[in-house]
Amino acid sequence: MATSRASFSLRRLLLGPPLPTVAMPHQTVGKFVGLAVFSSDALSSVAYATEEILVVLSVAGAAYFGLSIPIALAICGLLAILTASYRQTIFAYPSGGGAYIVARDNLGELAAQTAGAALMIDYILTVSVSVASGVAQIVSAFPRLAPIRVELALAMIAGMALVNLRGVRESGAVFAIPTYFFIVTMLGTIAFGLYRLLTGHLRTVADVPPVPATTGQALTLFLILRAFSSGSTALTGVEAISNGIQAFREPKSRNAAATMVWMSVLLATLFLGITVLAHHIRAVPAEDETVISQIARTVWGRGPLYLTTLTATTVILIMAANTSFADFPRLAALHAADGFLPRQFTIRGSRLVFSWGIVVLASVASLLVVIFRASVTHFIPLYAIGVYLSFTLSRAGMVVRWLKIGRLRPDEVVETKGSVLRYDPHWRWKLAINAVGAASTFVVMIVFAVTKFTSGAWIVTVLVPLLVWIFFRIHHHYEDVRRTLSLRDKPVRTEPAPVIHMVLVSDVNTASLEQIRFVRSLGVPWFGVHVAVDEAKAEVVRSRWERYVPDGTLIVLPSPFRDLVGPIREYVEALRARHPEAFIHVVMGQIVAEHFLEQALHQNATVIFALALRHIPGVAVTNVVFPLHAPQQAPAPHPAAAVASADE
Amino acid sequence: MATSRASFSLRRLLLGPPLPTVAMPHQTVGKFVGLAVFSSDALSSVAYATEEILVVLSVAGAAYFGLSIPIALAICGLLAILTASYRQTIFAYPSGGGAYIVARDNLGELAAQTAGAALMIDYILTVSVSVASGVAQIVSAFPRLAPIRVELALAMIAGMALVNLRGVRESGAVFAIPTYFFIVTMLGTIAFGLYRLLTGHLRTVADVPPVPATTGQALTLFLILRAFSSGSTALTGVEAISNGIQAFREPKSRNAAATMVWMSVLLATLFLGITVLAHHIRAVPAEDETVISQIARTVWGRGPLYLTTLTATTVILIMAANTSFADFPRLAALHAADGFLPRQFTIRGSRLVFSWGIVVLASVASLLVVIFRASVTHFIPLYAIGVYLSFTLSRAGMVVRWLKIGRLRPDEVVETKGSVLRYDPHWRWKLAINAVGAASTFVVMIVFAVTKFTSGAWIVTVLVPLLVWIFFRIHHHYEDVRRTLSLRDKPVRTEPAPVIHMVLVSDVNTASLEQIRFVRSLGVPWFGVHVAVDEAKAEVVRSRWERYVPDGTLIVLPSPFRDLVGPIREYVEALRARHPEAFIHVVMGQIVAEHFLEQALHQNATVIFALALRHIPGVAVTNVVFPLHAPQQAPAPHPAAAVASADE
Repeated sequence: MATSRASFSLRRLLLGPPLPTVAMPHQTVGKFVGLAVFSSDALSSVAYATEEILVVLSVAGAAYFGLSIPIALAICGLLAILTASYRQTIFAYPSGGGAYIVARDNLGELAAQTAGAALMIDYILTVSVSVASGVAQIVSAFPRLAPIRVELALAMIAGMALVNLRGVRESGAVFAIPTYFFIVTMLGTIAFGLYRLLTGHLRTVADVPPVPATTGQALTLFLILRAFSSGSTALTGVEAISNGIQAFREPKSRNAAATMVWMSVLLATLFLGITVLAHHIRAVPAEDETVISQIARTVWGRGPLYLTTLTATTVILIMAANTSFADFPRLAALHAADGFLPRQFTIRGSRLVFSWGIVVLASVASLLVVIFRASVTHFIPLYAIGVYLSFTLSRAGMVVRWLKIGRLRPDEVVETKGSVLRYDPHWRWKLAINAVGAASTFVVMIVFAVTKFTSGAWIVTVLVPLLVWIFFRIHHHYEDVRRTLSLRDKPVRTEPAPVIHMVLVSDVNTASLEQIRFVRSLGVPWFGVHVAVDEAKAEVVRSRWERYVPDGTLIVLPSPFRDLVGPIREYVEALRARHPEAFIHVVMGQIVAEHFLEQALHQNATVIFALALRHIPGVAVTNVVFPLHAPQQAPAPHPAAAVASADE
Repeated sequence: MATSRASFSLRRLLLGPPLPTVAMPHQTVGKFVGLAVFSSDALSSVAYATEEILVVLSVAGAAYFGLSIPIALAICGLLAILTASYRQTIFAYPSGGGAYIVARDNLGELAAQTAGAALMIDYILTVSVSVASGVAQIVSAFPRLAPIRVELALAMIAGMALVNLRGVRESGAVFAIPTYFFIVTMLGTIAFGLYRLLTGHLRTVADVPPVPATTGQALTLFLILRAFSSGSTALTGVEAISNGIQAFREPKSRNAAATMVWMSVLLATLFLGITVLAHHIRAVPAEDETVISQIARTVWGRGPLYLTTLTATTVILIMAANTSFADFPRLAALHAADGFLPRQFTIRGSRLVFSWGIVVLASVASLLVVIFRASVTHFIPLYAIGVYLSFTLSRAGMVVRWLKIGRLRPDEVVETKGSVLRYDPHWRWKLAINAVGAASTFVVMIVFAVTKFTSGAWIVTVLVPLLVWIFFRIHHHYEDVRRTLSLRDKPVRTEPAPVIHMVLVSDVNTASLEQIRFVRSLGVPWFGVHVAVDEAKAEVVRSRWERYVPDGTLIVLPSPFRDLVGPIREYVEALRARHPEAFIHVVMGQIVAEHFLEQALHQNATVIFALALRHIPGVAVTNVVFPLHAPQQAPAPHPAAAVASADE
């Protein structure tokens, strides 16, 4: 008791007081905080997207670096298509329109589970990658921290888990400042850089290793596509808002859609600005210095503003991981509610958040950080395929939805699981937007998978089907149980049955006499059972029994192999075989110590017995508890207890 | 069921079939195998003892290396004293005369627990150090294995745990070959080396870094004592046989004493031989080559016999760890039988060995190997203090014993817990041997602790008192429980009490109707209870209850914080307060899935309820099991089931 109360207080200190269920609707955010909570993943991608384009182009030579600008423009075009497409989804699915729901509603369970599995893998990777990358930036600035980079990453994940376990409003307040800090700093850097460019004062970057103008390798279409797909990591995270509409204040859809547009405009501005500046300063992808750092020191010089820009970039990378803490638990709860993940994911904890999802996400991401020693390099090839797979499935789902709407009569209204279908005269145009979105994200995904297959993408191509298989196994089990427990079309058995009562004793002492007093109080025939693990001890038990329980029968079961549960299980199974209609009632005693550590000093055989007997139908196992340190005073009566006494 | 049977088969495959209790006396060993089982720890010490002496002497300079021979002779003198002293113990305590028993019998509980704690620490360290050192030798020979040294060490510990879980006879057979392989190889190396020395063909060792003849540091008495104490690590493990007398064939004491003498003779021969050879070839303690390796390649040249000698040394170091697997579980069982460690240490597993002790030893040693990355350097300063503390306490105990015997009349016989006291005319002489033993081991311990305090010995000086404190806390708890459970001088309560029966339901389905059918079969008044974690769900439960259980009362407890157990606990406590004399009988239902992984998909609330209610006296918690996959056929009747049916 003392222990559980102490741990409860610690929990309260860390998480705050429990919130009643009626407090739920207030835990929402407005557009300003919502942008901070849901856009850090998308915005943080600009920290590496331009660099990734240049890395691919450098295979052909620095002469082709200028191609980065049309490629970035093409990616912004893709972003525009996705934004238009997702705005439709936000209004079509006001209670939350992530890839899982859209795919389930329009393409069926298999597509939905596939989209969900892909997204879950990506949410976990977002946490690992962003935290690892954030730590790498810190370590670049403070090399003395290098030996504890794994510990730093783990501490960050733990900190984020805690903030999110406290609830989304608090996490919004915590994360708004750094996100806006990044937006303001980066916009300032780009604006001042462009000002210096237009006034002719922007020089090229100094002290970077040169890249030959051409390397002799041809600039193929494949290479350009690869550069495009590498750069399109900039769009990871744009789906976050459509998953989290329910976290917004009313009117939810309108607020979420407006936030989505703002996020896309910001993302495109930052991405294009960084790409243009990188080209003009002749930035070069290098092992030891990021393109962002090269831009910042060329624009600001090596002063406090350079450090500020790097700090903001570091912080936004870490905050990006927080988007997953908002989305993963929500997605897991959706899967669980449909019976494809353990039901526990649907339970809201004391602070009204999906605690299980938060804890599982933090644990798996931490495990990956430990396994890969917090190295970004190992994660990158696994990252983004899942996102584009879910984009494709979700956009394809929207195409099917517009096809259905196109077939409706103008006054017809059809309700689906998450949406309402109404005729829309512009359905062909809207279908086209989504079809273009589906096709382009599909192409990006295929290019991604092909070019990075051997360096790690294959893991995801194995993992997604495996997860989908597990999801359907879980679903199958829940369906099985539902059918077994259902009372529909079944005869209800209510007639009483005979009950065979046995009292299991390891010794004759005050605890076992309490067990016997309980079964005596039932006023039924009964007998005692002792397993003779130790023959000498059995003799002592027999003689004590004769002295203290002269009116009861004691059966001593032999156990030549010193096995405690085997003889009991065989005995109960044999009784069952003789009396198939009867309940077998096994009464055990449990010595309860005050503290967990004291409890560990006892054999706790009741737990072992209960496990051994639980597969035998018709068995009822009773524990008569024997607290060693019983409270001296009885607590005050409970108001409902009066009802009970009336029924006795 | 399927799972537990599968795991049982795996266990059987690894450990062999279970042995009945009656098979116990046959699991003993003779002198030949006993020497191999119990002496590897002591004999393996020669692999580093000479080197440790030279390391200390090199502080003053190579000119003083000759002192290693008188120091080794002094250590052999100490060994002679200990052997004479321990022989007495083996005959005085025929059922096992380790430091724990001797100290308990003569110096009291505090000394006994201190000796035991010291020994346990040392047994664990013996495993870690020996395995780490053994792996270091392997890695020296095969540098490509260096990256997996931790994994190698863990695999070795796991392998030894398995061999010992199978039982001591098998482990004796497994370990006899390598121990005798080491003895023969090392005696051969020494003999051939001495032969070459006497015929004038033994050269000095080549290719070793020179040590200056004098370093300018004075050769103080302190330095000589330090060299002596470093070299006295050679004697760690000589107490092993006196702990394990019961593992010998009858006549146990005589066989054990003879084995002890043989071990000491072998140990002294090897230690002196190695020290003399090391001096004559001018061996030098070096980072990258052990003294044993220097001797072997000087005596045999770099050929197969050199490799054979190194292999034998490596193997004996690993085998040394096995001594702890024989002794630690036995010592832990002794502590546990006296109530100073959890009782579980006294339970013999299916193969009649103390499985808990073996598993705990392997686990803690593995943990240390992981924490210290299998580095011998980190362990050495912690090692050997414990051994000399237990030597001192055990020898002091023998001194007290001889004092008691000296006070006896010639015909008087006194029985103590582990021994029989008879007058002995030579008691003064025997007392003197033990007094010299106690004094010398005490001095060695103090020198050890002082010279190595800051480099790690302080950990042991903290750990021993801490363990002793924990042992007494455990003892205090067991004594408390014994008094509480004892029926002596207490009124026995047998009168029946009123019982309040409640059925806890989370839903109305086939499983909860089975719970209700059980309580109906008891033929007593009862009522249902539902915790309204979800208000909408509670309404569904209420309406289903009205339909399917029209004759029963249902109480719905509100739970605004979505807490499942809190409302139930408060309700039961309130009932208790109103009816302090009554039993509160809470009937729960448990859905049992076939596989563990399926079970994890359910909330398993019965476990949580049972934990929450277990501190309330007078509560009986019944689980009506509901196996989802009930076996189709009933098993054959058990012979004892007939007795039970007669009692119904």
